[in-house]
Amino acid sequence: MPFTRRHLLGLEDVSSEELSYLLDTAQSFKEISEREIKKVPTLRGKTVVGMFYEASTRTRTSFEIAAKRMSADFVSLSASTSSVTKGETLLDTARNLDAMRPDALILRHASSGAPHFLAARLDCAVINAGDGAHEHPTQALLDLLTMRERKQKLAGLTVAIVGDVLHSRVARSNVFALKTLGANIRLVGPPTLLAPEMRAWGDVTTDLHEGVRDADVIMMLRIQLERQGKNFFPTVDEYSRYFCLTESAVARAKSDVMIMHPGPINRGVEIASDVADGPYSVILDQVTNGIAVRMAVLYLLTNQARTQTHSEGETQAELAAPEVEVVAPRLRRKVG
Amino acid sequence: MPFTRRHLLGLEDVSSEELSYLLDTAQSFKEISEREIKKVPTLRGKTVVGMFYEASTRTRTSFEIAAKRMSADFVSLSASTSSVTKGETLLDTARNLDAMRPDALILRHASSGAPHFLAARLDCAVINAGDGAHEHPTQALLDLLTMRERKQKLAGLTVAIVGDVLHSRVARSNVFALKTLGANIRLVGPPTLLAPEMRAWGDVTTDLHEGVRDADVIMMLRIQLERQGKNFFPTVDEYSRYFCLTESAVARAKSDVMIMHPGPINRGVEIASDVADGPYSVILDQVTNGIAVRMAVLYLLTNQARTQTHSEGETQAELAAPEVEVVAPRLRRKVG
Amino acid sequence: MPFTRRHLLGLEDVSSEELSYLLDTAQSFKEISEREIKKVPTLRGKTVVGMFYEASTRTRTSFEIAAKRMSADFVSLSASTSSVTKGETLLDTARNLDAMRPDALILRHASSGAPHFLAARLDCAVINAGDGAHEHPTQALLDLLTMRERKQKLAGLTVAIVGDVLHSRVARSNVFALKTLGANIRLVGPPTLLAPEMRAWGDVTTDLHEGVRDADVIMMLRIQLERQGKNFFPTVDEYSRYFCLTESAVARAKSDVMIMHPGPINRGVEIASDVADGPYSVILDQVTNGIAVRMAVLYLLTNQARTQTHSEGETQAELAAPEVEVVAPRLRRKVG
Repeated sequence: MPFTRRHLLGLEDVSSEELSYLLDTAQSFKEISEREIKKVPTLRGKTVVGMFYEASTRTRTSFEIAAKRMSADFVSLSASTSSVTKGETLLDTARNLDAMRPDALILRHASSGAPHFLAARLDCAVINAGDGAHEHPTQALLDLLTMRERKQKLAGLTVAIVGDVLHSRVARSNVFALKTLGANIRLVGPPTLLAPEMRAWGDVTTDLHEGVRDADVIMMLRIQLERQGKNFFPTVDEYSRYFCLTESAVARAKSDVMIMHPGPINRGVEIASDVADGPYSVILDQVTNGIAVRMAVLYLLTNQARTQTHSEGETQAELAAPEVEVVAPRLRRKVG
Repeated sequence: MPFTRRHLLGLEDVSSEELSYLLDTAQSFKEISEREIKKVPTLRGKTVVGMFYEASTRTRTSFEIAAKRMSADFVSLSASTSSVTKGETLLDTARNLDAMRPDALILRHASSGAPHFLAARLDCAVINAGDGAHEHPTQALLDLLTMRERKQKLAGLTVAIVGDVLHSRVARSNVFALKTLGANIRLVGPPTLLAPEMRAWGDVTTDLHEGVRDADVIMMLRIQLERQGKNFFPTVDEYSRYFCLTESAVARAKSDVMIMHPGPINRGVEIASDVADGPYSVILDQVTNGIAVRMAVLYLLTNQARTQTHSEGETQAELAAPEVEVVAPRLRRKVG
Repeated sequence: MPFTRRHLLGLEDVSSEELSYLLDTAQSFKEISEREIKKVPTLRGKTVVGMFYEASTRTRTSFEIAAKRMSADFVSLSASTSSVTKGETLLDTARNLDAMRPDALILRHASSGAPHFLAARLDCAVINAGDGAHEHPTQALLDLLTMRERKQKLAGLTVAIVGDVLHSRVARSNVFALKTLGANIRLVGPPTLLAPEMRAWGDVTTDLHEGVRDADVIMMLRIQLERQGKNFFPTVDEYSRYFCLTESAVARAKSDVMIMHPGPINRGVEIASDVADGPYSVILDQVTNGIAVRMAVLYLLTNQARTQTHSEGETQAELAAPEVEVVAPRLRRKVG
């Protein structure tokens, strides 16, 4: 089986074969969420713990729904109601949870590297749900799945990533995976939100219209409004005048361009409302794919033993078996 | 089938037939919570999301327990730990959740009309769990169920609703449904918490003893202590002197009067402790019925397809099938 | 059956036979959490409600995981998002929850006696998850289980309890149970954190090295740093100089001493890091045993009827039946 890792910490060192296998598995899970009975018994008896040390709606909820649709038990900690307020170290909190025999621990944390630190010290699988300005691998995987569904391939695509590239873990995970899979990358933003070493990732420009020209994909990044005034850009209005994605900018991209955003969006700041809600936007498709990607990641990381004892074909059939007696739709598989 | 709505937003336009069917369905679910194994597989594979933007113990917990007893997965957001803190609009948050393919979204929100706004824009069922000073339909349904159980009927009952009628979504939903079902309504409170247009709803009085005279039901409303000082009444003491439900007031009602309160109660403010805990009080029966009502609402809104393919009798038997092999008690049905 | 209580409020009056039965039941549940599929259907259809009025990571999570591994539904309230903020009394909140027909209510509360107060007034089982400075029975049970596993017995063991004995509910529950089971107790701490009446519990000393000499077990207590400055001790540094458990202190205990701590630990305050992580430490074993103890408590309190209709042997086999068809490992039973 092409994916045998114990943890999902980032995409920087994940191979093309592994990425394709992750996406194939996610693709095969998509139809579960379209069934009348959206539940399979695959992860029954597995315990998944969410540790979210930063605010999150869609990522936490997406993992929780993904876990429950696989029949896993999901238990959530938030920093505000936990022993964090008693001054316990992250490692001690995590070790305590690990001693309760979870199968996977999902961590969102403001410190880059926090999931790697825990992965080296825990028995359970560790899934990075965003660590500082470092990586957010499941977000990038759902972005890749959305691109692959629309464009049938990733190699050769031109992907413009626009905004606060400097602080974006979403951008970093996407850049690593897209490069591995052969896409062409353009990074677009004000000079204060780019860095010279990004030239190793792809073309770098401070001109939005130049950056999106003939792009297959425009991936907008969220502007962290709370960073305003820290000298990265003068004002939000100033930023928007140059970098807000409007219809006139979209017109310079390919006629079948797809527009992505990891959310939550700041309407009128980094993306115009009519673009966010317009025909090229796939923002909500990304969210839908997030469920499938997280089901796949939870499955692959917590169910290694069972997976390894089956041929891949049997496993795919087994894991998509419905919870109760209904006719299972035939699985569609799409390979990028 | 008499109830084919996609959403439950309020009771203002819900017909007598629909109300009776909702109450009949809830009544048939009551015994599930009295079983040794309080769980039926009816909603297995359904996803229910709670979005509570205002504090709630009993309503959120009641929906969560109701969902779980029907075997649905329940996922909860609270405003404090979600992207609300990142400035996302309500509609964007809800659309994101909708893209995760929930079957129902339960919304409590300070803005009147918020659930209607979402219902027009989402695929999933929307359930109003209280919107501003507008409606709180499941609370009124559980109140109706409690009245119907005790009085065998609703038509012709005299119901006195006492307190802050002006700001009460509980009062509004009850008034709409009680009028549809033929009850007589009296509205009682200080003049600043009543409004001239309420004369269209029923009799209006500022005298508690007159208002409860010969009443079949006294429905107390919660005084929002945080509104004190906004000129609706001088002080809490002043309010209590005139409007706190004491035994001497109860004595003026019918000898089999039932006393209701949606909770949480302010003991000694709007209701005397001995009345709240006394023989006429059905406050805890209301809470018990809340589970059954929410099971029924979740069932009817998320299970339309299945319901419509069965005759009513078959459906009732099927949905009450126990989770495991035990002898199912015969369903009691009571029609108001 | 030796344990027929309706509630678990404390260990002060729990007999030796009851304690042994609780520990035996917990021991038999331990292997469930070591299975590939960590779930049994034993408590399917039971509803367990957690009311945590004080911050908690490990206790709340431990109860939640325990409940879910037994297939119970778990619903959690926290004081910050509940009607507590609307001024409802504890009893009214609890009575409301009780009206929703839960099988068990788990309460953590700052007031000593709060669970006893509720237990006398509710229909469901009440489990004390820590009440003020009074008792924390499930913590003591997991401590006992951990000691019994290592030492094969509890009678005759010398257990040194070190630190803020005065305010520690963990210490109190342990003292009560250890005395019942025949252990010898030493209480160690600064004079301001001991009390004269503790001489009835065991030996009392203010000298750490004397207190741990030849001990079989050293049980460290957490220093509540927020109490600093309230005249119990001058500074944390001062406290640590005399009472922090270091290797030199451990060297005075028996060569097979076991070191315990209920967590969260203050590294370098009451326990040195190398001791907490060292070979004598069983801190994480305690956490693992916490799951088994809470599974046992939930089982015994919510499943009395079923338990009483079976012989003990049958029940043990039945409750450990796996969720799906896999070969069940033979249960190991160890009696202290």
